[in-house]
Amino acid sequence: MKAILIKQPGGAEQLMIQEYPKPELNKDELLINVKAAAINRTDIINRKSESGYLDNPILGVEVAGIVEQVGENTKIKPGTRVMGLVNGGGYAEYAVMPANRAMEIPDNLSFERAAAIPEVFLTAYQTLYWHGRLATGETTLIHAGGSGVGTAAIQLAKQISNATVITTAGSQEKLNFAQTLGANHCINYKEQSFDSEVLRATEEQGANVILDFIGASYWRKNMNSIAVDGRWVLIGLLGGAELEKVNLGELMGKRIQLTGTLLTPRSDQYKADLTAEFASNTLPFFQDEKIRPIIDRVYSFDEIQQAHEHMEDNKNIGKIIIQID
Amino acid sequence: MKAILIKQPGGAEQLMIQEYPKPELNKDELLINVKAAAINRTDIINRKSESGYLDNPILGVEVAGIVEQVGENTKIKPGTRVMGLVNGGGYAEYAVMPANRAMEIPDNLSFERAAAIPEVFLTAYQTLYWHGRLATGETTLIHAGGSGVGTAAIQLAKQISNATVITTAGSQEKLNFAQTLGANHCINYKEQSFDSEVLRATEEQGANVILDFIGASYWRKNMNSIAVDGRWVLIGLLGGAELEKVNLGELMGKRIQLTGTLLTPRSDQYKADLTAEFASNTLPFFQDEKIRPIIDRVYSFDEIQQAHEHMEDNKNIGKIIIQID
Repeated sequence: MKAILIKQPGGAEQLMIQEYPKPELNKDELLINVKAAAINRTDIINRKSESGYLDNPILGVEVAGIVEQVGENTKIKPGTRVMGLVNGGGYAEYAVMPANRAMEIPDNLSFERAAAIPEVFLTAYQTLYWHGRLATGETTLIHAGGSGVGTAAIQLAKQISNATVITTAGSQEKLNFAQTLGANHCINYKEQSFDSEVLRATEEQGANVILDFIGASYWRKNMNSIAVDGRWVLIGLLGGAELEKVNLGELMGKRIQLTGTLLTPRSDQYKADLTAEFASNTLPFFQDEKIRPIIDRVYSFDEIQQAHEHMEDNKNIGKIIIQID
Repeated sequence: MKAILIKQPGGAEQLMIQEYPKPELNKDELLINVKAAAINRTDIINRKSESGYLDNPILGVEVAGIVEQVGENTKIKPGTRVMGLVNGGGYAEYAVMPANRAMEIPDNLSFERAAAIPEVFLTAYQTLYWHGRLATGETTLIHAGGSGVGTAAIQLAKQISNATVITTAGSQEKLNFAQTLGANHCINYKEQSFDSEVLRATEEQGANVILDFIGASYWRKNMNSIAVDGRWVLIGLLGGAELEKVNLGELMGKRIQLTGTLLTPRSDQYKADLTAEFASNTLPFFQDEKIRPIIDRVYSFDEIQQAHEHMEDNKNIGKIIIQID
């Protein structure tokens, strides 16, 4: 089969299409004829790294395609259109996926749109609900409102929880887009101090749940923005990791729950449980087009280098997809 | 009725018995003939403060006694022996309690023993289970193993969850006592570095749940001691609040949930829900004497000054109780 491999750790120019053996199918797994895969930041990190990803020389943690063959103990039938997380190996004509992570693709979605769902929507669901316990009618502050996880989280919070969504981004284009997804308050962090805006929008109560991709540089303002009994979920450190002077009394005074989390390194069982709950609670919204996968651009298989470079430019709104055929 | 009032904010010498009007009974409340009350650190803080406690000039947040009279909408019958949290007013012959916070006292417990239950056991339950989500067979590190909440938490973790309990204290007497309650590993923090001991006791995996009464001075060692996916519950700042440096990458790398919490300032509904769940899950253990309230010393009503001074000495193991009659 054709697969994208890395000549040696480094830039996007190291990515190349090569012939590679089809993966072996084990019990509890599906062999998938991959039609589309999505690019993730973890792929960029692993492309540059010596250690490789999850012992798989092929990058890619999410795919959409057609089930070609099924291992023992699986209930899904060959021919089913599925999407889901894989343990690496997504940038290839064939990939194996634990069967309990496969979600059947709603009929109205193409493979490209389906490939844009698993990683960002599962992460948004995990952070908003498993960690953030967002309740109906609460307020959530979602940073990076134009990012993959940001655009997913805005939609989930609106559709599942009828939440008041406050989002931040650094360009008017991203903020306008976030508004079309349902965000109630859109703050340009380059022009406004987001903590004052959050307090103003919430009658000084603050946000019940914060999705924080930024870390250190937003610490003070997030602390100002969070409500009593707020849940603050840290899922990225784009603004640095090192804090000087932290007052733990603030965490106690506001009874804050601060959680650091990542999805990719979690166990197979965790991913299966998360997938099952997510599919049951959200796929109907995708069928009705009330929630939609957000695609920035679709590249062909042989444009993989451009696709990586596009992500590294940080200008995308939503997902970057590669078609595989 | 007789009640203990504060002449003016200050030391224990400011506490005095005085005549004071019986509290008024409202709907959804019980009027309780108080037989025993317990001393809490929040009482000391409020004795010294200008602002008073919850608008009640009488200190005391937990009592045990006999229901004298019931308000509208209550199901509990006069004559029932009850224990539970009150919104201040506990140091008195009569106190009112929201009916949904009253727990019927198991027959085998005296009023003095019952008064030693609500605050510390509800706090321990809240932190271990509502915040810490301690699961069967997990490991928990409980600091201040000789304290009221510490001795309660050790017993709950052993009896409800068959957890491996690691505890710290500063005297051999406290550690010996913690061992009789079921603690598996007892560490004298003055003689041993607790993080190395926790890692040794857990085959380098660390503790799944930490109850932290200490804060800043234990930060580094708690971070070393916590397991991946660990829950760290901050319920005191006896070792200070100010941290010089924090690396948020550690919270993400270990996927830690750090929660600051307090029980006393929570809402009536929260306390009612917590009381109901606690009563249903733990009162059978008290009936069977598998879990027992830990009393350091019982004082008479007119020894209130000595009772406060005894708590301020920090030498007690378990609760300090006052009999009221």
